[in-house]
Amino acid sequence: MKPYTSVLKIAYDGTHYHGWQIQPNGISIQEVLQNALKILLKCDTHITGSGRTDAGVHALEQTAHFHHDQPIDKRRLLKSLNALVPLDIRIMDLQTVHSSFHAQYDAISKIYRYHLYFDQVQNPFKRLYCWHVLEKIDRNLLLKAAQEFLGTHDFTSFANEAHRGTASHDPVRNLMRLDVIDEPGGVFLEFEADGFLYKMVRNIVGMIFDVARGKRPMSDIAVVLAAKDRRQASPAAPPQGLFLVKVNYPNFP
Amino acid sequence: MKPYTSVLKIAYDGTHYHGWQIQPNGISIQEVLQNALKILLKCDTHITGSGRTDAGVHALEQTAHFHHDQPIDKRRLLKSLNALVPLDIRIMDLQTVHSSFHAQYDAISKIYRYHLYFDQVQNPFKRLYCWHVLEKIDRNLLLKAAQEFLGTHDFTSFANEAHRGTASHDPVRNLMRLDVIDEPGGVFLEFEADGFLYKMVRNIVGMIFDVARGKRPMSDIAVVLAAKDRRQASPAAPPQGLFLVKVNYPNFP
Repeated sequence: MKPYTSVLKIAYDGTHYHGWQIQPNGISIQEVLQNALKILLKCDTHITGSGRTDAGVHALEQTAHFHHDQPIDKRRLLKSLNALVPLDIRIMDLQTVHSSFHAQYDAISKIYRYHLYFDQVQNPFKRLYCWHVLEKIDRNLLLKAAQEFLGTHDFTSFANEAHRGTASHDPVRNLMRLDVIDEPGGVFLEFEADGFLYKMVRNIVGMIFDVARGKRPMSDIAVVLAAKDRRQASPAAPPQGLFLVKVNYPNFP
Repeated sequence: MKPYTSVLKIAYDGTHYHGWQIQPNGISIQEVLQNALKILLKCDTHITGSGRTDAGVHALEQTAHFHHDQPIDKRRLLKSLNALVPLDIRIMDLQTVHSSFHAQYDAISKIYRYHLYFDQVQNPFKRLYCWHVLEKIDRNLLLKAAQEFLGTHDFTSFANEAHRGTASHDPVRNLMRLDVIDEPGGVFLEFEADGFLYKMVRNIVGMIFDVARGKRPMSDIAVVLAAKDRRQASPAAPPQGLFLVKVNYPNFP
């Protein structure tokens, strides 16, 4: 057991990665970071993230921890890590914490944003960072549909099976906040919950989209939530509009 | 002589292009647009831009014109063009105008922005869209250095020789405006002039940078302007921080 634990806050542009989590088919954020730490700490080092993000999904602040044998010079390690990893991954902060800290289990809430862009012609600088929606969206329906998801629900209908056999777990989550915030050319939806099931944000956005464009009635949201059946909900929104914004912990800024 | 003239307003992310202008070594924005127009109009079509932008330089609104034989359905051509070209180039608008219109010669002013980012750790979402400056910058020196360039000057010291033998021309330009505007993590410099010499914005930013970090005295700016010698000025700022924002015409929005 390594006696020291440090925490990384990481921002990444997920465009060129096969998501956060190490997997056989392509390069992941976790793998890039572990490879860099292995070089700098001169031993195999496992990094535990707050949770995975999928291919094409971005992070403004992902949190991850790792254990190490020796105290570290945090300013120096931060600089060395950023020198070793590509510019689309940046370690924004590094802190040594109590060794009981766990990036996944200690999280009390997470914030995600999903960006929708409505202008007729896509903005070339947003092509990798939003969902370009050409269908006519009713803003009032959008706001009302978002409200329908607030509160504590069994979100089974809005969760994909996690691939690679993660043990099944409680599908009840408390969605404390779902704000719709204007930005030039579109809106973003900001979600805060005590936790998110696999693909939950993208599945909820897909359903809100279908209601806001008039393809499905508002009442379908409650019906689909109650059905606890993923097949009754709408298709997931695409990954590139999704940003992990922040992971909150009780005793950690 | 083709009797009709239409104007395109184009936004592009210049990261993956060898600049605006057609050249033998790589793909350019102009080439992509001409190839698409050739397919849609079924004849060779030359596009004339307001001026070139270099490899890695971006545009929020470049203006270009082309001549054509038949009247066009502008909504349909706009849609077809955007369907044919990659997502990092978007045609934002298309208008048929008086056939005397010329995108380069009729321009009365141009606006450029240059983005500087100062945070210790680069933002991964800005890596292709700003110059990440780690040197300590004195904000007052930056503001004062910018002011030194205002007005009508012979900008020979801040112009590179245009490659590929463009005829030499008057190096006097009127820099009407050079604003320094705060944004999260940095600033951008917004330039408006009646015209810009080749690499003029990047060369001025390079000089302002050297003065603002204390490497050269403020008085060097007047000395270098008076010298009319490119070798006396500072190195050019890198291309990725530069955006062509707008080209202004007397009778065209």
